[in-house]
Amino acid sequence: MRNFNFYSPTEFVFGKDTENRCGECVKKYGGTKVLVHYGSGSVVRSGLLDRVCASLKEAGVEYVMLGGVQPNPRDTKIYEGIELCRRENVDFILSVGGGSCIDSAKGIAIGVLYDGDFWDFYTKKTTVTKALPIGTVLTIAAAGSEGSPSSVVTKEEGMLKRDVGSDLIRPRFSILNPALTETLPPYQTACGATDIMAHIFERYFTNTPEVEVTDRLCEGLLLTMVKETPRVIEDPHNYEARANIMWAGTVAHNDIVGVGRSQDWNSHMIEHELSGLYDCAHGAGLAVVMPAWMELVYKHDVMRFAQVATRVWGCEMNFQNPEVTAVEGIKAFRRFLHSIGMPINFEELGAKKEDIPVLVEKLGIGDGKTGGFVELTRDDIVKIYTIAAEAKLD
Amino acid sequence: MRNFNFYSPTEFVFGKDTENRCGECVKKYGGTKVLVHYGSGSVVRSGLLDRVCASLKEAGVEYVMLGGVQPNPRDTKIYEGIELCRRENVDFILSVGGGSCIDSAKGIAIGVLYDGDFWDFYTKKTTVTKALPIGTVLTIAAAGSEGSPSSVVTKEEGMLKRDVGSDLIRPRFSILNPALTETLPPYQTACGATDIMAHIFERYFTNTPEVEVTDRLCEGLLLTMVKETPRVIEDPHNYEARANIMWAGTVAHNDIVGVGRSQDWNSHMIEHELSGLYDCAHGAGLAVVMPAWMELVYKHDVMRFAQVATRVWGCEMNFQNPEVTAVEGIKAFRRFLHSIGMPINFEELGAKKEDIPVLVEKLGIGDGKTGGFVELTRDDIVKIYTIAAEAKLD
Repeated sequence: MRNFNFYSPTEFVFGKDTENRCGECVKKYGGTKVLVHYGSGSVVRSGLLDRVCASLKEAGVEYVMLGGVQPNPRDTKIYEGIELCRRENVDFILSVGGGSCIDSAKGIAIGVLYDGDFWDFYTKKTTVTKALPIGTVLTIAAAGSEGSPSSVVTKEEGMLKRDVGSDLIRPRFSILNPALTETLPPYQTACGATDIMAHIFERYFTNTPEVEVTDRLCEGLLLTMVKETPRVIEDPHNYEARANIMWAGTVAHNDIVGVGRSQDWNSHMIEHELSGLYDCAHGAGLAVVMPAWMELVYKHDVMRFAQVATRVWGCEMNFQNPEVTAVEGIKAFRRFLHSIGMPINFEELGAKKEDIPVLVEKLGIGDGKTGGFVELTRDDIVKIYTIAAEAKLD
Repeated sequence: MRNFNFYSPTEFVFGKDTENRCGECVKKYGGTKVLVHYGSGSVVRSGLLDRVCASLKEAGVEYVMLGGVQPNPRDTKIYEGIELCRRENVDFILSVGGGSCIDSAKGIAIGVLYDGDFWDFYTKKTTVTKALPIGTVLTIAAAGSEGSPSSVVTKEEGMLKRDVGSDLIRPRFSILNPALTETLPPYQTACGATDIMAHIFERYFTNTPEVEVTDRLCEGLLLTMVKETPRVIEDPHNYEARANIMWAGTVAHNDIVGVGRSQDWNSHMIEHELSGLYDCAHGAGLAVVMPAWMELVYKHDVMRFAQVATRVWGCEMNFQNPEVTAVEGIKAFRRFLHSIGMPINFEELGAKKEDIPVLVEKLGIGDGKTGGFVELTRDDIVKIYTIAAEAKLD
């Protein structure tokens, strides 16, 4: 196991009706004037925004509102938020929404206190040294941004997707009410579940030996997702299944199951160009990319792939030929994704095979290699996009 | 799943040579004058205390020292610590040792800032509203106190063992270097491992339905302990196995695997009287009590016991008679404890069957019932002690 630091100071307030406690939470963490940041009309229609505002009022906390965050959140909304916060002397940002909304809030939080262009943080021109405190009321189990130190934002000009990470943008509190996710369409629910599973796999595929404890924790989370996801696809109002998925999503991404080991993250990187170019859901892009990535790299560590196949997918171990088991596990993953309504190839995603050169170009690795479980060249990435483009069930 | 709050703000600094960073950590969390609190001569002999002091000096942090904390830490040492801290204007407590040392540090931390007798917190006469900040350098994977909000202390007069809990006594940072545990005798290593497994089981046996995610995480930790513990008993210098156990021990007790579900803790309560009366190791007491508790209560939820038997102990599920599987799992647990050198009955522990009335009396539940997975009466507890007294391998 490698040396590591683990720090996850976010307070998670989990369960039914917990959104009514957001005013009290903001106050506890020192907020006096809040930016309520949200996305689409659904939080308005469902009455959630009203309940949030009522809770703030009850706690005697002032607020201003900024809605309209889009999925794959844009830099333009962040500039708007920064200006509003400065004008209104906002000292706390409350995100009411999913990962996109939280990531947008994180961008605003670091931008408000920075003299230059906030995009500098995402291009790594500068690093985060201060940020406004953030709280969240989560409406979809997916990105894990409610407990993570990272933010992914898309620059509209050129649709460039870039990320930033800092402990300073970890939310002070996150309110997780699984009931709020019951109104999500099945497709979005499945996209969220896929994103959660991808966060686990990115950590699971490691070259660090002797990491039994995090292996086992990752497998425990995957087994949970395999059991609970079909239940919420079948019955969106299954609160208990939603609750298990929601906690799995948070634990999957606060890194308690990923510490002390090398991680991969190439599937995320490769997917970002898909959702960047086609504006598709990140989870749907991952459903297409991740099994393709597995097919390209599994020979690098057949026994690790056989391990996940037997422990998570219930495949019987082929002791004469472990590769058979490894491949069965990848097929089982793709079948699972299909069963919950996810796309499994470019056509189903709405992507085009002929765009592969554009996708690879935008990734911008040139003649270099990526890091991760297996270092990928430009050619490898072309192969992964090609497998993803043509994938079928079998 | 139940509603819950989860909050674990401790920074964990994990890996080789990390004790050399304790000065920097104390400074980061605002300490200027430190009480270095430690237990036995082993931290002196191993040179650890010298390295800790050198790190403090290098960071320009002043310190005073207080050694001599005993296992099952005593109130007398805490009174001594409180006086020393007040006299020397200490503003940070650094515990260098195991769970006993950390629990003693926590007692001092709340006592220094309280006008009355610190024991008031342990008898629940008053609640914690402030505490000095604490940091730890852990020397045994066991109690989980390095990431927990609780402290257990023994009042010498009457050997009463009582506990207190508050987020205010969670360590600000904990330094976890698995190599520091390599010098532990096998018996203490096994006691620590047993304590860790007990912390998981206390959470695992629940009456809350639909807790797949925490079930699976608990099972993942148990599987880790079953694999790694025999490796460190065989070879005390197996760093990798020690590292897996150490992280499992922390995760087992910061409650990330226990949230949203009712928990038990009767085995801990029943054990406390054993280590209180005989001053035996807490882990050794648990090895004797926990399987006995399981034998008394398993009929309350045969399927849950069958689940852990198949998923953790690798027993084959008996679909015609799940009770057979449930009982096999308990036997497998006791065999495992024996295999790592733990006592399995009163004689091996150094306890006496004729003391059972004294033990039950000290528990002080009178004609009432305990809470937990199964509510226990005084008679039930007599039965558990009796099973524990007479247990054999089979």
